[in-house]
Amino acid sequence: MRLSFIAKAIGIEFSGEDVEILGIHTLDEASSSQMSFLDNAKYMTSLENTKAIAVLCNAEAALNVPSGCIALVDEEPYLKLALASKLFAPNVIETEGEDAIIGEACFIAATAYVGKGCVIGNNVKLLPGVFVGDKAKIGDNSILHANVSVYRDCEVGQDCIIHSGTTVGSDGFGFAHTKLGEHVKIYQNGNVLIEDDVEIGANCAIDRAVFGTTLIRKGCKIDNLIQLGHNVDIGEYSILVAQCGVAGSTTLGRNVVMGGQSAAAGHITIAPFSQFAARSGITNDVKDGSKVYGGFPLMEQRSWLKLQAKLARLLKPKK
Amino acid sequence: MRLSFIAKAIGIEFSGEDVEILGIHTLDEASSSQMSFLDNAKYMTSLENTKAIAVLCNAEAALNVPSGCIALVDEEPYLKLALASKLFAPNVIETEGEDAIIGEACFIAATAYVGKGCVIGNNVKLLPGVFVGDKAKIGDNSILHANVSVYRDCEVGQDCIIHSGTTVGSDGFGFAHTKLGEHVKIYQNGNVLIEDDVEIGANCAIDRAVFGTTLIRKGCKIDNLIQLGHNVDIGEYSILVAQCGVAGSTTLGRNVVMGGQSAAAGHITIAPFSQFAARSGITNDVKDGSKVYGGFPLMEQRSWLKLQAKLARLLKPKK
Amino acid sequence: MRLSFIAKAIGIEFSGEDVEILGIHTLDEASSSQMSFLDNAKYMTSLENTKAIAVLCNAEAALNVPSGCIALVDEEPYLKLALASKLFAPNVIETEGEDAIIGEACFIAATAYVGKGCVIGNNVKLLPGVFVGDKAKIGDNSILHANVSVYRDCEVGQDCIIHSGTTVGSDGFGFAHTKLGEHVKIYQNGNVLIEDDVEIGANCAIDRAVFGTTLIRKGCKIDNLIQLGHNVDIGEYSILVAQCGVAGSTTLGRNVVMGGQSAAAGHITIAPFSQFAARSGITNDVKDGSKVYGGFPLMEQRSWLKLQAKLARLLKPKK
Repeated sequence: MRLSFIAKAIGIEFSGEDVEILGIHTLDEASSSQMSFLDNAKYMTSLENTKAIAVLCNAEAALNVPSGCIALVDEEPYLKLALASKLFAPNVIETEGEDAIIGEACFIAATAYVGKGCVIGNNVKLLPGVFVGDKAKIGDNSILHANVSVYRDCEVGQDCIIHSGTTVGSDGFGFAHTKLGEHVKIYQNGNVLIEDDVEIGANCAIDRAVFGTTLIRKGCKIDNLIQLGHNVDIGEYSILVAQCGVAGSTTLGRNVVMGGQSAAAGHITIAPFSQFAARSGITNDVKDGSKVYGGFPLMEQRSWLKLQAKLARLLKPKK
Repeated sequence: MRLSFIAKAIGIEFSGEDVEILGIHTLDEASSSQMSFLDNAKYMTSLENTKAIAVLCNAEAALNVPSGCIALVDEEPYLKLALASKLFAPNVIETEGEDAIIGEACFIAATAYVGKGCVIGNNVKLLPGVFVGDKAKIGDNSILHANVSVYRDCEVGQDCIIHSGTTVGSDGFGFAHTKLGEHVKIYQNGNVLIEDDVEIGANCAIDRAVFGTTLIRKGCKIDNLIQLGHNVDIGEYSILVAQCGVAGSTTLGRNVVMGGQSAAAGHITIAPFSQFAARSGITNDVKDGSKVYGGFPLMEQRSWLKLQAKLARLLKPKK
Repeated sequence: MRLSFIAKAIGIEFSGEDVEILGIHTLDEASSSQMSFLDNAKYMTSLENTKAIAVLCNAEAALNVPSGCIALVDEEPYLKLALASKLFAPNVIETEGEDAIIGEACFIAATAYVGKGCVIGNNVKLLPGVFVGDKAKIGDNSILHANVSVYRDCEVGQDCIIHSGTTVGSDGFGFAHTKLGEHVKIYQNGNVLIEDDVEIGANCAIDRAVFGTTLIRKGCKIDNLIQLGHNVDIGEYSILVAQCGVAGSTTLGRNVVMGGQSAAAGHITIAPFSQFAARSGITNDVKDGSKVYGGFPLMEQRSWLKLQAKLARLLKPKK
């Protein structure tokens, strides 16, 4: 898509050399054929080092755009990003295109749907009501139970099991906001990648990335009714117990254990092997993975137990 | 339905003028062609001012029924309401009736179901496995992702997006209880109305009203795995983050923000622009919408943070 | 299946009399045609009294295996159990077998799926997208709303209502762990039994038992987005409010009430008629069913309210 076309579509004046834009990504991750954006001055260093060919930013930040990068200047760059993201959104569902490639010895129910351009491995089972969107891939031996939905462009590895009602690849929760308090959708043009030997329980919701990939690494075991926000990275062999949630862009190291109804805030990093008791609320980076944590705010679980015992004593009449 | 028929069906003696009853509603909302009920003496003023043509109530309350309103007297009026509600329940699914009206340029998957008497706007996309119950309406340009279920009589506005696995219009959680501890279903004969430009994430549950309408106003953005009880009214442009819940009959003003895993109790009113941190537990009306709240019980978020810091200090050894 | 075959398949040396093994169960519940396992020395008494024909255990425990019971000795008996459980797992979906028996006056949607060997009662309604796995049973007058999934071998009683998106019979969350931190699936070969007159809301997840049965007793009313782990036993007429969870092997007595977003830990017993406020966290047995509990850790709800009031006073400046 030509940059001139994008600029016109989102209402930014643009003069200078026109270039082809293949997509949008963050300042750090954008390639030289992608555009990016700066919404928060704390990422100024990322701006100065971006490889993006063009950047949405305000007038002040435009001064720091590296040479060879085109500044698209607007006082509401995040709002313009939202408008631009829509231009790159693929069709919700394709009605034309190449038929899926289906491996050997598969069971594909009559009411299962396999989209255009999908690649389904050998010995895959797609039970009734399963939806596999366009260009999605399902690895050998994987089982998708009844009424699982895998959105377009997502990938499921080999030897995976996904239980009924789970959604893989729904849109991440991202919006820009107008001064009037309206919300403008940032189209979530990334995907979800589930590696090999992952099991996911019933009625989970795993959002696709806004840019790039939401990643569930190999051997993870994920229980029921769990929320994984866009762009999370769940380390290999991690265990997530029922009704827990991980907000967007948070990274878990390998073999992390999150108890039932626990939650991690967005944009944090959790050390490998960290363990979290049920109901833990994790709001900051966890750097020491050798401990068991609990409570909200988070502390060591044994401290939380001690604190709760102390508090309960407040109820006893004073002598 | 004749009142004499209803009375007989639910086991209440009835003599006097017979009238036609078109439905059941609350004392405040009932029209002169509907019946109502009084279960709790605190609504006595509502009883005295009701327009309902008939009211289920106990003998004491019957003295306050306004003239022209017929008292149906029973010592367990709520139990009788449950029995009466069943009489007004429509068929779960219609096998006869007028075909749906489908707009132009729609995509309706082969395995999507559109009930009798539905009205589907232009450019609507119903992906595989979508269920749209009888007489439901879906507005122009709306997208229902795979395996979304919209129950009968519910309405979705224009430019809406509903993600996979979400249920719109399931029965609200309402039961009368017998002296033996059994629960008798109060049929939920209301509906859900979702206004324009609403996005709802994956695997949410939005209950239909017991009477009247569960209302999601325009521009709301609702994340994944969220519970909205019957008869809630979610103000326009409100943002509900993943795994939060709003119990029945609670009203949110416009642009309310509820953080992840937060919850609001039933029958409360929350001021416009109120913001709630993750895990907030809202149990009373919130009248000042200019603040950020948190904690359970609820307080200002900055107070909650201060309190938690104080409590953590209890763990330090005293000098 | 011959014990010699099992031993070879899971890599345990076996010599002695070969026997036929029909399944796996706990030490307490195993019949004389089933094998069992001991993973934790605290169940040694159960080992000494088991009726199982064979037991996976370590060398030390093998000394206590009752006469007539064959010890299969391994230093990682739980890991071997996981391997053995796979041998007994039935097919995910049958493509051959007897057609289902369908009662009279049923509505079965064109896109509903009824597996081999199912028994569907009279006047049952299976709405579009419903999945009923092989050999499952659905009792008279029950309604399964759109996109409900009932896994194979599960049973739903008479006069039940299950709302859209709910999953009944997904695999319980059970894994053995290798020394390298990998997780090996314990196949969940039990089922779910839902008794008569149960209503289950939208998008719940009810796991099948690892051995035996996950039990929802008659007259229970279960709201939306609720997690019930494997082998729970929910007492009759219990009420579970939205977004609550009950972890595996926990037993609720009759008429227990669990508030919204509350949770019970696994392997505990809760007395009949106990009531739990919203957000309660139940981590131990509850023996007195006459009270209302709340908080996390759990206490009487009135104590929790008093404690929270005391804590809030810590924020007031000292005089």
